[in-house]
Amino acid sequence: MKRVAVALGSRSYSIQVGSGLLAELGRHYSSLKLGARCAVISDVRVAPLYAAKDLKSLKDAGVDASLITIPAGESAKRLRNVERCYDQLAAHRLERKSCIVALGGGVVGDLAGFVAATYLRGIPFIQIPTTLLAQVDSSVGGKTGVNLAAGKNLVGAFYQPRLVLCDLDTFKTLPEREFRAGLAEVIKYGIIYDAPLFRLLEKEMPKILRRDTQLLTRIVARSCEIKAEVVSQDETETGLRAILNFGHTIGHAIEAISGYGKFLHGEAISIGQVKAAQLSARLTGLSGAEVARITDLFRKAGLPTTLPMTRAFQARLRDAMKLDKKVSAGEVKFVLATRIGEVRWGQKVPAELLDGALGS
Amino acid sequence: MKRVAVALGSRSYSIQVGSGLLAELGRHYSSLKLGARCAVISDVRVAPLYAAKDLKSLKDAGVDASLITIPAGESAKRLRNVERCYDQLAAHRLERKSCIVALGGGVVGDLAGFVAATYLRGIPFIQIPTTLLAQVDSSVGGKTGVNLAAGKNLVGAFYQPRLVLCDLDTFKTLPEREFRAGLAEVIKYGIIYDAPLFRLLEKEMPKILRRDTQLLTRIVARSCEIKAEVVSQDETETGLRAILNFGHTIGHAIEAISGYGKFLHGEAISIGQVKAAQLSARLTGLSGAEVARITDLFRKAGLPTTLPMTRAFQARLRDAMKLDKKVSAGEVKFVLATRIGEVRWGQKVPAELLDGALGS
Repeated sequence: MKRVAVALGSRSYSIQVGSGLLAELGRHYSSLKLGARCAVISDVRVAPLYAAKDLKSLKDAGVDASLITIPAGESAKRLRNVERCYDQLAAHRLERKSCIVALGGGVVGDLAGFVAATYLRGIPFIQIPTTLLAQVDSSVGGKTGVNLAAGKNLVGAFYQPRLVLCDLDTFKTLPEREFRAGLAEVIKYGIIYDAPLFRLLEKEMPKILRRDTQLLTRIVARSCEIKAEVVSQDETETGLRAILNFGHTIGHAIEAISGYGKFLHGEAISIGQVKAAQLSARLTGLSGAEVARITDLFRKAGLPTTLPMTRAFQARLRDAMKLDKKVSAGEVKFVLATRIGEVRWGQKVPAELLDGALGS
Repeated sequence: MKRVAVALGSRSYSIQVGSGLLAELGRHYSSLKLGARCAVISDVRVAPLYAAKDLKSLKDAGVDASLITIPAGESAKRLRNVERCYDQLAAHRLERKSCIVALGGGVVGDLAGFVAATYLRGIPFIQIPTTLLAQVDSSVGGKTGVNLAAGKNLVGAFYQPRLVLCDLDTFKTLPEREFRAGLAEVIKYGIIYDAPLFRLLEKEMPKILRRDTQLLTRIVARSCEIKAEVVSQDETETGLRAILNFGHTIGHAIEAISGYGKFLHGEAISIGQVKAAQLSARLTGLSGAEVARITDLFRKAGLPTTLPMTRAFQARLRDAMKLDKKVSAGEVKFVLATRIGEVRWGQKVPAELLDGALGS
């Protein structure tokens, strides 16, 4: 078991990474001195697998816990489901000191976190991410939210959990495709912040793909640590935090115009990161050899690195990028790498270069 | 013109109180260095009266401003209208540095503030409250939100505006009943915090009801000042801020079970404050003479002080109070007065006393 501390003053919390953590929820809940009433929000795919264990652990700790389920998948991350959660919280009479437990992948965490941030103007919540992607990314850093028809994550709040439990046992039921998609964010941490992590991934990818628990504990904990370090320095994304968006401007646009669900988030940002690496070679001095190592590592992880695009698709992609939250004064800014382990944010990319990268 | 400073560290802002402020919006907007794009959110009643002046002022300052209208009245304060605003903001391509201007009464301010707090995880906003109630209460302090079927303000966020403009010229179109309802909050500030203000209201009520501009500037500014002082000490309502809820636990419940719209908020909390004064006489030493002065002042302002209730209505009222956000561990706590100008929060009221007060 590893423990990562997220330092955010009075909103600090810890992330626990290891096996058998689901059954320990009740114990942690008690030690955090949260209210006697609690709602576990999960989706219809995850709830049958793990909710019973969570609810029992809470009940054994004397907590009055109820279960709220939402549909599964990215399309569930919408305001209608937020409203349904609110109505059930009110029906269960949750109070300001009551707690929400988010049990599931990124969709559940983002939606349940937004519900927690806004119900009664904010009640405590605990994250139990059950996918690799959610463990290393969305459960850390306090970004919560839902999608609009016009774009992904256009509505939300910055809101920190009281505790994150990353139970690696949940990977036993995680489909191969989703596991690989999660690796896209792990590789990102190597590129933007940690060359030794990148080298470890290059060396150990086969063992990682066999889901070696010890290795994954180390990798998940290190990923959370990097994200926590970045977030601690820039909670509301005014500067440094932008580096976490490496590959995401293009990635989000690919997701948006392909219709959410065609590409998994991790797949879209794999393509996005390879494109960003290519732009980095043109603009910020990333070497051709490093572009090749980056492309190669995504391939080794079984992730897509190219996307054939028609001209019409490219045009729609450029349009979608302009709706990205990181847009300022109508200008799309990119995070680009100078070498593996170091990036710069706020980089302007000339239109013709961007077109070239998208077309390649 | 009076200026009230709200001290909240990096989220500090100022409230301007006076005449002719609507036309100065553009100037203030520029000096705050907000983004080039802006959306004015108003309702179908207020927009035809004042939106043109605001939009012109913004346009003259070089701001690309669009108008979004919602239906009028408390029933408009719902998630469906929040979602419609989001969609229009996305269609107008508002960015993180873009700004929302809330032009209207409390409903518009609460809803538009919540939209601003959650669109792109928070963009700047400016409040231009056009009712007395909104000027002295809802526009100050950063509470934003909407109602659920289960209760009022059950969803929301703490989110501070960048500026509040209280233009007394807007009172020219404010219906008499709404003006009087606003006085209920002004009287509240006297009871909870400022005996001299209470005496001023006792002395000058006829002149106030004639809407004397000079007197109102003084009273509105003093009310904002009191609220700002309280909020500065306790932004997220963990303690002191609770005193602002004097009369509100009963008042909110009256609104909820009467169906929103039957009583104006100010009318419901007038009754609530008189009931709270009666409970204070039994529990916290408020004298009978002071209960009489309080009841009298509400009467002089043309506000209701009693509500005949059947037993069934009383039972529903007690039930509704338990859903109040201030409930902790199932227990309803009250703010009660020790004398005019001083209150205590977190007061337990024995069930039989509460029943007695509700029945009287």
